[in-house]
Amino acid sequence: MLRATCDRLDRLGLDRPTLLVDETRARANIARMAAKAAAAGVRFRPHFKTHRNAAIGRWFAEAGVTAITVSSLDMAAHFADHDWDDLTLAFLVNPRQLPRLGDLAWRLADRGGSLGLTVDTPEAARAVRHVIGDTAPLWIKVDTGYGRSGVPWDDGPRLKAVAESAVCTGLLTHAGHSYHTAREDLPELFSETARRLATAREATGRDLLLSVGDTPTCSAVDSFTGVDEVRPGNFVYFDLMQRALGVCRDDDLAACVACPVVALDAARGRVVLHGGAVHLSKEQLPGPVYGLVGRLDGEGPRVLDAAPVVDISQEHGIVRTAPARFAEVFGRIRTGDLLPVWPVHSCLTGEAALPTRLLAGATSEA
Amino acid sequence: MLRATCDRLDRLGLDRPTLLVDETRARANIARMAAKAAAAGVRFRPHFKTHRNAAIGRWFAEAGVTAITVSSLDMAAHFADHDWDDLTLAFLVNPRQLPRLGDLAWRLADRGGSLGLTVDTPEAARAVRHVIGDTAPLWIKVDTGYGRSGVPWDDGPRLKAVAESAVCTGLLTHAGHSYHTAREDLPELFSETARRLATAREATGRDLLLSVGDTPTCSAVDSFTGVDEVRPGNFVYFDLMQRALGVCRDDDLAACVACPVVALDAARGRVVLHGGAVHLSKEQLPGPVYGLVGRLDGEGPRVLDAAPVVDISQEHGIVRTAPARFAEVFGRIRTGDLLPVWPVHSCLTGEAALPTRLLAGATSEA
Repeated sequence: MLRATCDRLDRLGLDRPTLLVDETRARANIARMAAKAAAAGVRFRPHFKTHRNAAIGRWFAEAGVTAITVSSLDMAAHFADHDWDDLTLAFLVNPRQLPRLGDLAWRLADRGGSLGLTVDTPEAARAVRHVIGDTAPLWIKVDTGYGRSGVPWDDGPRLKAVAESAVCTGLLTHAGHSYHTAREDLPELFSETARRLATAREATGRDLLLSVGDTPTCSAVDSFTGVDEVRPGNFVYFDLMQRALGVCRDDDLAACVACPVVALDAARGRVVLHGGAVHLSKEQLPGPVYGLVGRLDGEGPRVLDAAPVVDISQEHGIVRTAPARFAEVFGRIRTGDLLPVWPVHSCLTGEAALPTRLLAGATSEA
Repeated sequence: MLRATCDRLDRLGLDRPTLLVDETRARANIARMAAKAAAAGVRFRPHFKTHRNAAIGRWFAEAGVTAITVSSLDMAAHFADHDWDDLTLAFLVNPRQLPRLGDLAWRLADRGGSLGLTVDTPEAARAVRHVIGDTAPLWIKVDTGYGRSGVPWDDGPRLKAVAESAVCTGLLTHAGHSYHTAREDLPELFSETARRLATAREATGRDLLLSVGDTPTCSAVDSFTGVDEVRPGNFVYFDLMQRALGVCRDDDLAACVACPVVALDAARGRVVLHGGAVHLSKEQLPGPVYGLVGRLDGEGPRVLDAAPVVDISQEHGIVRTAPARFAEVFGRIRTGDLLPVWPVHSCLTGEAALPTRLLAGATSEA
């Protein structure tokens, strides 16, 4: 059933593991999230850490996006070099980078933009103001329940202390515990996150903006209520983790890795791919599953639960299917063919130094 | 107890996650393995996939190494560009790359070198000979029990068929199941692997060379008996996985990631690092443990089991220690300090596009 897919990939002239991005699907994912933000009247500041790709950044710009989120200074500098002026670095300020952060903040200010920075202590807030001045919008990182970093949402005294130590723009959180929340509970998690941020704002006694951002809750809610800004990132590609959470359809999956087949073993129901941890990452779903082979031909199921990548090492991926089904699934595949593998976590796949091919609808059109 | 370490890292002028390689330790690791191979009279063909670094490659050359192993065509081309002439690509041939493999094989042959290739079917062996001619040494990939790829060692007819389809140089295996073998059983696993390769050779009826390569067994044995070539790679750095297996000492660990501290929370016993899955990989030891903070000051324990990275996301790592021990371990640490984190699997850490700093003995000398 995969022959048509292999024939299509054959025509791309690839000879090594390559990230394939479906432009039609990715643009649809962007448009949908942008429309939801516009309908709610909230600022859409998508996180660019998933794709980190200037060409894909332009798809966002063409959808009306003017403000973005990044997770490192290097990523901020990269997109500033590609004409993005309004950036938030949603990662606690590393004091050692203050000089370079200042250089970038002033460079953006000179062209009418800004570099938002994130802090969780009065000392950090004062250090930013001391080194950078008033140029950078300051966001207080708040922990609304994820437990990774930020001021706990119910620690009023500390929130007040940070807010009083320097002029701040808003409160920012990442509700990463959404990745461990059942689909039906995600809308309530979004609301709870907004309520906790509002409580935190009250403690500061300041009129601060509220910014949230994670793909599961932002995809699950019908409307962004109670916040001023949303910063999801993964939704541009989605992945098997989001699929397992139930916040995307198979038709929304916009990025896969084309992996060369290097061995076939029908008797054991195995296919050996050139596609390992350096391409797909070691992120796993229960099984373990490190990825799923799928189709690009627009017929039948696109993602084959019957063909999981069950083991992975640095460069190898092992796909296993029931030997009784091997002929049906892989019957006409040969070594040298390329198979599309949908990754568990597309942010980490995008991080791998893979060659990338942008395809206009190649994963959705026949 | 980590203050002296932070002071030393402070002097390096780093401001972001950076791979630190201890030249003294890495050269000692190389020298020890090279000496063991020389004593046994076997060829030492170390795998370069762990470091993938031309400067570190020169340390091998200075230890007398002239032949290397790589795991992709791109890696082969990289080291061919850095004056390595005798390469084995220990990854099953991807037929789609035959034209490029041929170009590289001929380029190496022109300067007196060669590109060894790996096959597991008569068809692949014939395809190599058809496209590339007799230039490339051909190795038959044998599965001696790992179960990842290659001709099963006891499948005599298939081994014979491959060996008869083209002129072959030898039999090559990777006993990756050594990573799940108890320390005391590793020498026997090495011997068993050699015996199984010898059995496979008998089935071919040819006078073929035997090549093995995995760091656990190659580190555990006193002598390389029963093989012609060894291809370990990880041993240049070692890592927490090898430490857990018991095949290296803490003093042999030669690569760590310097990670900036972005938050400290004594009450919860937590340190938040800029150092996540993109730097350390998602490889884990039971716990889970994604890395261990350690010292560089030459006093006391170098790797702190009391300070594990217990959670990891794309850019963040969370270190947790018992709150009662927090002051002792992290008492004088500030945000902005850099902490060394020893990775679980150094091959994947080396794969991350990290800036790399080569230090002459910085992790072992005061």
